[in-house]
Amino acid sequence: MTSHPQKVFSLKELADLTGSELKGEESIQINNVAPLMSATSGQISFVSNPKYRKQLESTKASAVILSKKLAQGYQGNVLINDDPYLTFAKIIRAFHQREKPTAHIHSTAVIAENAVIGTNVNIEANVVIESGVTIGSDSEIKSGTVIGENTQIDSNALIAANVSIYSKTRIGKNVIIHSGAVIGSDGFGFAPQKDKSWYKILQIGNVEIGNDVEIGANTTIDRAALGSTIIGNGVKLDNQIQIGHNVKLGDKTIIAASSGIAGSTSIGKYCQIGGTVAIAGHLEIADNVVITGRSMVIGSIKKPGVYSSGVTADENRKWRRNAARFRSLDEMAKKLKQLEKKLESKNK
Amino acid sequence: MTSHPQKVFSLKELADLTGSELKGEESIQINNVAPLMSATSGQISFVSNPKYRKQLESTKASAVILSKKLAQGYQGNVLINDDPYLTFAKIIRAFHQREKPTAHIHSTAVIAENAVIGTNVNIEANVVIESGVTIGSDSEIKSGTVIGENTQIDSNALIAANVSIYSKTRIGKNVIIHSGAVIGSDGFGFAPQKDKSWYKILQIGNVEIGNDVEIGANTTIDRAALGSTIIGNGVKLDNQIQIGHNVKLGDKTIIAASSGIAGSTSIGKYCQIGGTVAIAGHLEIADNVVITGRSMVIGSIKKPGVYSSGVTADENRKWRRNAARFRSLDEMAKKLKQLEKKLESKNK
Amino acid sequence: MTSHPQKVFSLKELADLTGSELKGEESIQINNVAPLMSATSGQISFVSNPKYRKQLESTKASAVILSKKLAQGYQGNVLINDDPYLTFAKIIRAFHQREKPTAHIHSTAVIAENAVIGTNVNIEANVVIESGVTIGSDSEIKSGTVIGENTQIDSNALIAANVSIYSKTRIGKNVIIHSGAVIGSDGFGFAPQKDKSWYKILQIGNVEIGNDVEIGANTTIDRAALGSTIIGNGVKLDNQIQIGHNVKLGDKTIIAASSGIAGSTSIGKYCQIGGTVAIAGHLEIADNVVITGRSMVIGSIKKPGVYSSGVTADENRKWRRNAARFRSLDEMAKKLKQLEKKLESKNK
Repeated sequence: MTSHPQKVFSLKELADLTGSELKGEESIQINNVAPLMSATSGQISFVSNPKYRKQLESTKASAVILSKKLAQGYQGNVLINDDPYLTFAKIIRAFHQREKPTAHIHSTAVIAENAVIGTNVNIEANVVIESGVTIGSDSEIKSGTVIGENTQIDSNALIAANVSIYSKTRIGKNVIIHSGAVIGSDGFGFAPQKDKSWYKILQIGNVEIGNDVEIGANTTIDRAALGSTIIGNGVKLDNQIQIGHNVKLGDKTIIAASSGIAGSTSIGKYCQIGGTVAIAGHLEIADNVVITGRSMVIGSIKKPGVYSSGVTADENRKWRRNAARFRSLDEMAKKLKQLEKKLESKNK
Repeated sequence: MTSHPQKVFSLKELADLTGSELKGEESIQINNVAPLMSATSGQISFVSNPKYRKQLESTKASAVILSKKLAQGYQGNVLINDDPYLTFAKIIRAFHQREKPTAHIHSTAVIAENAVIGTNVNIEANVVIESGVTIGSDSEIKSGTVIGENTQIDSNALIAANVSIYSKTRIGKNVIIHSGAVIGSDGFGFAPQKDKSWYKILQIGNVEIGNDVEIGANTTIDRAALGSTIIGNGVKLDNQIQIGHNVKLGDKTIIAASSGIAGSTSIGKYCQIGGTVAIAGHLEIADNVVITGRSMVIGSIKKPGVYSSGVTADENRKWRRNAARFRSLDEMAKKLKQLEKKLESKNK
Repeated sequence: MTSHPQKVFSLKELADLTGSELKGEESIQINNVAPLMSATSGQISFVSNPKYRKQLESTKASAVILSKKLAQGYQGNVLINDDPYLTFAKIIRAFHQREKPTAHIHSTAVIAENAVIGTNVNIEANVVIESGVTIGSDSEIKSGTVIGENTQIDSNALIAANVSIYSKTRIGKNVIIHSGAVIGSDGFGFAPQKDKSWYKILQIGNVEIGNDVEIGANTTIDRAALGSTIIGNGVKLDNQIQIGHNVKLGDKTIIAASSGIAGSTSIGKYCQIGGTVAIAGHLEIADNVVITGRSMVIGSIKKPGVYSSGVTADENRKWRRNAARFRSLDEMAKKLKQLEKKLESKNK
């Protein structure tokens, strides 16, 4: 996870690597990336938002990635690309991609005899791998992580420190899971009894995670009651997200931090869900739905589009008055109707 | 926590076990539970919601649990019970109940010499049990969990991997705590000083958890400043809940994921609190209060009933306009009153 | 973290220690602190809120800390001080301050050969300290915590159990980090690609934490994409807070539980942010801003003051009607304007 940027590329090499057009000095040596305003000689930066055009003139970066439009009239070294942000991301990776782990199993790791560990796997200190687990090749499991019975993790996983993965979980290729995440904990299922106590519904399902998924720090994904909680291919989950039992997340859906999806809700593909969004249980959200931050969703959404809720912060003394009025909004609406009627009847 | 469903029951045995009336073939062999639509031969399922009645006709389950009413006219094998959901939960348990742990202390567990470990306790790899701790019989402590000084845990606990329990905690019988939960961390108490720095109020109290409590993954419960934070008997807490210092939760209260209860608030018995609810500090919530998901509670609630707040998601362009109007709601209300007056004065 | 209150002070000693005026018996022996109503002989308590004045008469505490005003007419032993709460906090510390750890490194700790461990450091079981790490003197690292490569922690740190600190983090003096906290996980940065997949922006920055900071249980602080996520001196963060990449928190700002600050937002000094507040990304919040609990902030705040949002809980059946009306608030406002016009035109 650490980076040792000792690599150097010529600007030509970076152009080739990213399919960009090069304007300027081909052979200039680039040794790292940096933000526009703090970049120094030897570094490359980018601008995608036209409002930063001005800063372009004063940057000390040796080269900048720009769109065709922004590049017009710029005198410095440029990589021209339709998508400067994505191009920058690729160049960051060129300099900072973590190296494949060297195959090593730390002496303090506790690994069940029947676990199957692929080639070129790095397992760090105090990792616990229980009976029946499979770890794919080129994977890295950081210190203190616990992987429960019969869980299968495919190749090229990066599981950070102190992750907890319960039994029977299925994890695809190229998955990243950050520290403190919990995968496969019991769903929240209880049947009420006559004495008002709650009878636990044993959660006998599991969690299935596709390929190319990233899961943020302290995010929790519950196992299904029956069947599977499903995280599609290419899903990206930020920190502190809660995914209830039997939820389904469609491919390439992305969710920002601290959001929660209650049990049995199904979310489509290519959705973008903001931070601290709350989505109730047993709903269906269509493909290509965008839900802005802090929204509260209590009904299914059948059409693609942008959806929102929430009330934004205001000066406290104004908010108090408005929030108080909210509590008689229905009454206000009725009065308004009465007034309309009265006025109409007069006009007759 | 894993299940090895190798058990087989006759339908008669399941009827006896759950006090259900049997209609159909007594001797049919049932080997597992399943959802109605994916069930196959040998499996039992249930329907409690009349809207799934239709699916009943096409299920391949060998038997179904139904209410008397839903059972009318159904030709397959049935267990008839007033509460099909609870009956199903009991049958899940019959098949999947975890076995009592075999007494075993993993060689890598670090256990203080003066800790008292009951009979038939399973302590897994890298568990740390500090000085003065007591662990009751039939308990299971999964890998990587740390239990602080002088904490007492009663019998039949199931503490999942990577749980952190601070010192002096008291935990009752039959308690389940999921991975990543933190019990007994410092309450958030600081006194302001003249230089605007914050002086830490040492949190010298503890957390007391009753019997039959379940605590979800990554839930946090702070220790009291003085005295105890109290979680009553039979309380069920979902994932990522935050319980502040000196909070009291009454018996059999249930809270869904990602909710937070601020310091010194007292919640009654038999309350049901939805997900992502925020309850301010120093409040009193009566017994039998239901608070729906995403509500914001800033005043005490003295009467049982259902309470709610929040604004639900709408198309973004409509929401923008409505949310903007919220900021002048008080003004609108005043104008409305003026109009009413004007109209009245004319009518005189 | 545990306390063994065996200390005894005379009331005179406590007066001297806290700069308080003493009224009553100087030599009376005090052996602990307690809340007013549960205090017994030998204990000291405090009242700062005048509404508890009445309870003062029936307390069994041997002494009470009071403001000058509240002390008037009180017959018992008193410490008089402008700030009874702060004074009480100081006296709690006199009795319960944790002792400096005894230098000890547990045999199960895994410490890289090139790590630099200061004097008088206590490292508990199963701690993992990676290559290039520095731990300052008088620090305590509890069991199961993992500290990534090249991280530097200054003196007098208290890192609780099962904390995860990623590589290259910088942590100042006197910092407390509670269990389950994750420092330095990847920020949530992805560039969209034409096939709707998300291209990970490698997060190559770090987290820098000032002096005298406290970080609550299961709080997460992401590393910067480029540069640093910065937590100022004296900042206090409660549990389950999410701090996005490249956020800056000014000195002595305090944030209550379960709040989230999205990426690149900058918060000033001396701010007080309530629980479950959501602040969007790329904003600037001025110094001395107070944001009340559950607020949603989507614009920069340039003036000090108190800001709020949210709609408070109501009886469900009333809330349903009001929340439904919110969805046509804009329409209501327009109708109101029409009515006003009509009425005006009539008056002409």
